[in-house]
Amino acid sequence: MVNPSLGEEIGPVPVGPAGGPREDELLATLRRLLSDDAPGVRLGLGDDAALVDMGAHLGVLTADMLVEGVHFDLATTSARDLGYKAVAVNVSDVAAMGGSPRYGLVSLGVPAAVDASWVVELYGGIRDAATEYAVSIVGGDTSRSDRVVLSVAVTGEVARGRAVTRAGARPADRIVVTGWLGGAAGGLALSRADPHVVAQAVGWGWGHELLGAHFRPAARVGEGQALAGGGATAMIDVSDGLTLDLWRLCRESGVGAAVRLADVPVHPALFELAGVLEVEPLELALSGGEDYELLATLPAPAVKDVASGLRDRFGTTLMEIGEIRAGEGLTAMDRDGNERPMEPKGWDHLAG
Amino acid sequence: MVNPSLGEEIGPVPVGPAGGPREDELLATLRRLLSDDAPGVRLGLGDDAALVDMGAHLGVLTADMLVEGVHFDLATTSARDLGYKAVAVNVSDVAAMGGSPRYGLVSLGVPAAVDASWVVELYGGIRDAATEYAVSIVGGDTSRSDRVVLSVAVTGEVARGRAVTRAGARPADRIVVTGWLGGAAGGLALSRADPHVVAQAVGWGWGHELLGAHFRPAARVGEGQALAGGGATAMIDVSDGLTLDLWRLCRESGVGAAVRLADVPVHPALFELAGVLEVEPLELALSGGEDYELLATLPAPAVKDVASGLRDRFGTTLMEIGEIRAGEGLTAMDRDGNERPMEPKGWDHLAG
Repeated sequence: MVNPSLGEEIGPVPVGPAGGPREDELLATLRRLLSDDAPGVRLGLGDDAALVDMGAHLGVLTADMLVEGVHFDLATTSARDLGYKAVAVNVSDVAAMGGSPRYGLVSLGVPAAVDASWVVELYGGIRDAATEYAVSIVGGDTSRSDRVVLSVAVTGEVARGRAVTRAGARPADRIVVTGWLGGAAGGLALSRADPHVVAQAVGWGWGHELLGAHFRPAARVGEGQALAGGGATAMIDVSDGLTLDLWRLCRESGVGAAVRLADVPVHPALFELAGVLEVEPLELALSGGEDYELLATLPAPAVKDVASGLRDRFGTTLMEIGEIRAGEGLTAMDRDGNERPMEPKGWDHLAG
Repeated sequence: MVNPSLGEEIGPVPVGPAGGPREDELLATLRRLLSDDAPGVRLGLGDDAALVDMGAHLGVLTADMLVEGVHFDLATTSARDLGYKAVAVNVSDVAAMGGSPRYGLVSLGVPAAVDASWVVELYGGIRDAATEYAVSIVGGDTSRSDRVVLSVAVTGEVARGRAVTRAGARPADRIVVTGWLGGAAGGLALSRADPHVVAQAVGWGWGHELLGAHFRPAARVGEGQALAGGGATAMIDVSDGLTLDLWRLCRESGVGAAVRLADVPVHPALFELAGVLEVEPLELALSGGEDYELLATLPAPAVKDVASGLRDRFGTTLMEIGEIRAGEGLTAMDRDGNERPMEPKGWDHLAG
């Protein structure tokens, strides 16, 4: 994969005996270990978020941890963007269930050397996202730590019968995705490039767009609810890479998928980026991750209406990129209709 | 303070302009920054847990983060104990509101070098605590990290009108505390002592008790509900030290407190420990922290009934250690009735 800037994090994930990256294998073990079939648990480990009984609605629970040196680099990430992103990625998990976020808990580990003003800026970014997505930050924890660790949990709610898991995709369903893909990975690559390249790219506008996709990803809350209301049979947010997340959705649904490569919505700025850095736009769109767009499956007759609804209400494009098939595994289709097997690639949080 | 083994973590906390340790000052800033008075939020930042509207009950939300090198040392802490404790300390926060824990989210950061079997053991400990406290672990996150970080969030519930915050203590209320204090700090000191001392102490039985208090603290869920039902006006769990946590309770209630030192339930094994290590039992009980006992205030007439209820139903002693006074600050009373001001001391999570 031609992607020197991202070499360590994005690349072919070693496919183990269980067919997935190391993270997925470990999670499968943990799911066996932690029986979560207690009363009140409608959906436990393994989806974007958990669903639990909570009064008239289902509660949606999710948590994500951002670790310095793994998920972000303090040299290139501002405290404000970091706070924003930590909330947004959790909100995205609630969105991927078709839910509405409500409350947030923020736990922060911070080195003694970090300035109090940095922490205040961080919470400013948390507040930005909390305001934007109507999440109330109601608690959490602070601790000393060698490196910055930011762990956020968000609870939300979804009407009974309206939650969309990863498990409902059926053969012949269409595969759809919101927005553009690969922008966040392009932004990450750009943020690590020579400062002159960065400055020039930002000056041209497209650089700013890519950096924004990486540092301030948008969670698609309204879109997730519209997809759920429009009949989505399965849904996941693209956090680790289109092919890897699609593979996870297929695994949970017990189906396979075919993707028309020409229809994958490659972020347009990536073609500009390819002029200054050695990146492959389609590869970034297929496996870059962190775009936090929604990947869903819909019955064929529903696609058109849902797509126009998303465009009219949110200004968000919905692209149909392929279809669900019986069987298992991913297939790539080129313009001429040729098919070849496609490996799931993306970010493995536990890769060394 | 005579406590060489704990020197860096437990000691007089620098009392800043706001009158509290650095952690409390920062939290005060963050409370101002994050307005959490949104609809549905009954109690936001600053108590043991948050209270939010959730159907017929109030939801109780809390999160705690354990960081390697700060909260635990991998050389002396087993994976199983660590997993157990990470859940128990969150359950304790729910207990301190008078609530019942329900669901847990576990986020784990782990170095690439850590063995998968270590992670499985960790989740075994998480399962132990989840089973003991009837918490369903429904989600979370895993990530690579330089050092082990374990961040747990727990949701629970409490009947409307039954939640006990830190803010309701009134002058003349009695101050009560469950169980023994200082045992966890004694266990920590012992775990760091010469291996021969540890082996001998464990052989004598009392060493085992102290290590258990540190590595496997019990959350007082039933006791918390009994205290709430018995009329507790304020409650907090002793996570950072009796005097520091009492000071926090008083600050939130706008009152002061007087503590009879002779009535503080010093863990009996600490007197044995003082024979082999240079520790001061009363000091550990006053400022050691991590005992996760419940510290509450009760109207004087209620103490006797609540205490016998706790003894009969849970085998837990409830000790009356002093009383709430008008004004502010803490007062220590000796056997002869002499009084002197007492500084809040305990664990400051952000101290360098």
